[in-house]
Amino acid sequence: MNKTRLEAFSDGVLAIIITIMVLEMKVPHGVDLEALRPLLPVFSSYVLSFLYVGIYWNNHHHMLHVAHRVTGGVLWANLHLLFWLSLFPFVTGWMGENHFDALPTALYGVVLLMAATAYWILAQSIIRADGSHSLLGRAIGRDFKGALSVILYAVAIPLAFFHQAAAQAFYLGVALMWLVPDQRIERVLKGEKGE
Amino acid sequence: MNKTRLEAFSDGVLAIIITIMVLEMKVPHGVDLEALRPLLPVFSSYVLSFLYVGIYWNNHHHMLHVAHRVTGGVLWANLHLLFWLSLFPFVTGWMGENHFDALPTALYGVVLLMAATAYWILAQSIIRADGSHSLLGRAIGRDFKGALSVILYAVAIPLAFFHQAAAQAFYLGVALMWLVPDQRIERVLKGEKGE
Amino acid sequence: MNKTRLEAFSDGVLAIIITIMVLEMKVPHGVDLEALRPLLPVFSSYVLSFLYVGIYWNNHHHMLHVAHRVTGGVLWANLHLLFWLSLFPFVTGWMGENHFDALPTALYGVVLLMAATAYWILAQSIIRADGSHSLLGRAIGRDFKGALSVILYAVAIPLAFFHQAAAQAFYLGVALMWLVPDQRIERVLKGEKGE
Amino acid sequence: MNKTRLEAFSDGVLAIIITIMVLEMKVPHGVDLEALRPLLPVFSSYVLSFLYVGIYWNNHHHMLHVAHRVTGGVLWANLHLLFWLSLFPFVTGWMGENHFDALPTALYGVVLLMAATAYWILAQSIIRADGSHSLLGRAIGRDFKGALSVILYAVAIPLAFFHQAAAQAFYLGVALMWLVPDQRIERVLKGEKGE
Repeated sequence: MNKTRLEAFSDGVLAIIITIMVLEMKVPHGVDLEALRPLLPVFSSYVLSFLYVGIYWNNHHHMLHVAHRVTGGVLWANLHLLFWLSLFPFVTGWMGENHFDALPTALYGVVLLMAATAYWILAQSIIRADGSHSLLGRAIGRDFKGALSVILYAVAIPLAFFHQAAAQAFYLGVALMWLVPDQRIERVLKGEKGE
Repeated sequence: MNKTRLEAFSDGVLAIIITIMVLEMKVPHGVDLEALRPLLPVFSSYVLSFLYVGIYWNNHHHMLHVAHRVTGGVLWANLHLLFWLSLFPFVTGWMGENHFDALPTALYGVVLLMAATAYWILAQSIIRADGSHSLLGRAIGRDFKGALSVILYAVAIPLAFFHQAAAQAFYLGVALMWLVPDQRIERVLKGEKGE
Repeated sequence: MNKTRLEAFSDGVLAIIITIMVLEMKVPHGVDLEALRPLLPVFSSYVLSFLYVGIYWNNHHHMLHVAHRVTGGVLWANLHLLFWLSLFPFVTGWMGENHFDALPTALYGVVLLMAATAYWILAQSIIRADGSHSLLGRAIGRDFKGALSVILYAVAIPLAFFHQAAAQAFYLGVALMWLVPDQRIERVLKGEKGE
Repeated sequence: MNKTRLEAFSDGVLAIIITIMVLEMKVPHGVDLEALRPLLPVFSSYVLSFLYVGIYWNNHHHMLHVAHRVTGGVLWANLHLLFWLSLFPFVTGWMGENHFDALPTALYGVVLLMAATAYWILAQSIIRADGSHSLLGRAIGRDFKGALSVILYAVAIPLAFFHQAAAQAFYLGVALMWLVPDQRIERVLKGEKGE
């Protein structure tokens, strides 16, 4: 099976998601700072989502790099991840246009949670295809960062109904935690070469 | 002729189709569950179409994998398939926004039928280019699943005017039938290696 | 210079152009045939433009296939072609929504004319980079089909102000003339192998 | 790390940016020249932005061509550049629809300035990854053109509040200055081969 085409298709979808999110920032009719002010929350939710899609692209890039076999299961696990990521423009727009109101903030968290789960499923299906002694199997091991993200999203979602800013802080915190690319994979890759 | 570029262009078009369909889910103005409710049919028709585009990408990926020659005829058969798939965002939006009304449901089926026919034409044109003793020629053989899909669509289209939910069930059923990637090709590929 | 990346970028832009044109077919609010009727001219102008973008992709594919050197001049000639093609969604939408009225039909022809000219410039800049004895230089030679297209567009544009259907027939006629991929290049390629 | 996929993703994002900008040119309802007139400033700002995205793609293409190592830092510097470029459709639309008014013109300059800065950061992070004696390190050296662009943008932004046409002239001037692809890199590449 052809890994290149899986990467190319995923790159295409991620590139489109990251770019059409900006279309939610509707061009205002006024020409002064007042006209821009209502766009501020839309803009900041765009920045947050751009960060998240960037992180997913980055980690996807790393993970596929060490995958050896692409089975039918991997193809569908990948499409499942892309499905949840494709909802980013919608939830980003809804959250931004409503100034980070309770339900939109919670729904944003739900999509983050589902995308993280889908990423975990994809990792597992690659490990299953490659064998648990594979590079990825050893690199991921007990996926501490992944598990922590899921817990933090799960806390942030109900929190969004009581304190939106706190939920936002959770979302931003998880993003910052992931900004560093997955060093576990790089470390194992280096170990591989060193052996 | 360059197979890579045909795949890259198809991947691009399919990636865009699958992603712009989500733009039909317009960001609502309200912030409560009431505001989301009218989006439910749009969302479920989005899920169905995402599944279908995923299936087409998946099978297209498998089919091109075993194709050897890309002739002018194959290029145009491929564009013809992409044309019908490009109508997915339109029919998905129309069906979703009208809560699966009769005519939109039927038209959705017409586009499914035309896409299935275009896929069949593409398969035939690849077989013609590669020879009927080619890998694909032997793998497809009597295309049972493809023929069954066409029959089911042809039943579902008139059915949509009497019982929309039943027509929907047909569409979903065909999708589930195809969710398994084309094992005939994988089987023949394995046999190839075993010889 | 990297031919692959020029092809990838062009494929991306053409894939997006061909797909976003469908967004000009706005989902109607009604659910009967009456609701679809105003979309008929939009749909038929979409079909025409899909055909044209398909032809450009097809011929671009053939032309780049035989190009050897990609200079700065070729990069910009290619971007220039993509610029005119990027105006297709706009002129397609304007012509379709206005039922092939005079000025929109003429403007559509102007964009066709400019794209054809840009394609000719691109061919010349590739020949200049590769040398006139290059494969493309010999294949294109006196570009009869290209020159005829430009003449037909140039006749159709003023004609659009007097008889829109006739102008449309010219546009469709040129498209049909190009549907056959550029056999001159295939012929020379075969001759090359035969030598 | 995989340079190909970084290029593919960047190509995808740039291809989408350059193409969706055209969606800001809304299809007018009228069918005469009067109906097109309000689109003229939108069209000319589209041309300017198309030129800029073309320049960035061109130079990005050249720069990545000589890069050897793609580190995590390079990936994020690249995403940072794509972020600022993704704001082009928004500022292009705002400036065009408001006939080059003061604040939209200034904001367009701010995005140009940030994109130029992000490009500089990307160049530095590639040089850091490859070593300052690398091809790019020697080619860029004291980046005269880059520094001059930043200065011209910095002058044009405040100027936009007093004389919009002058600020526009600055933006156009910088674009024309960059139209020539980065000959420093081509020169060093040739020297490389000559050694």
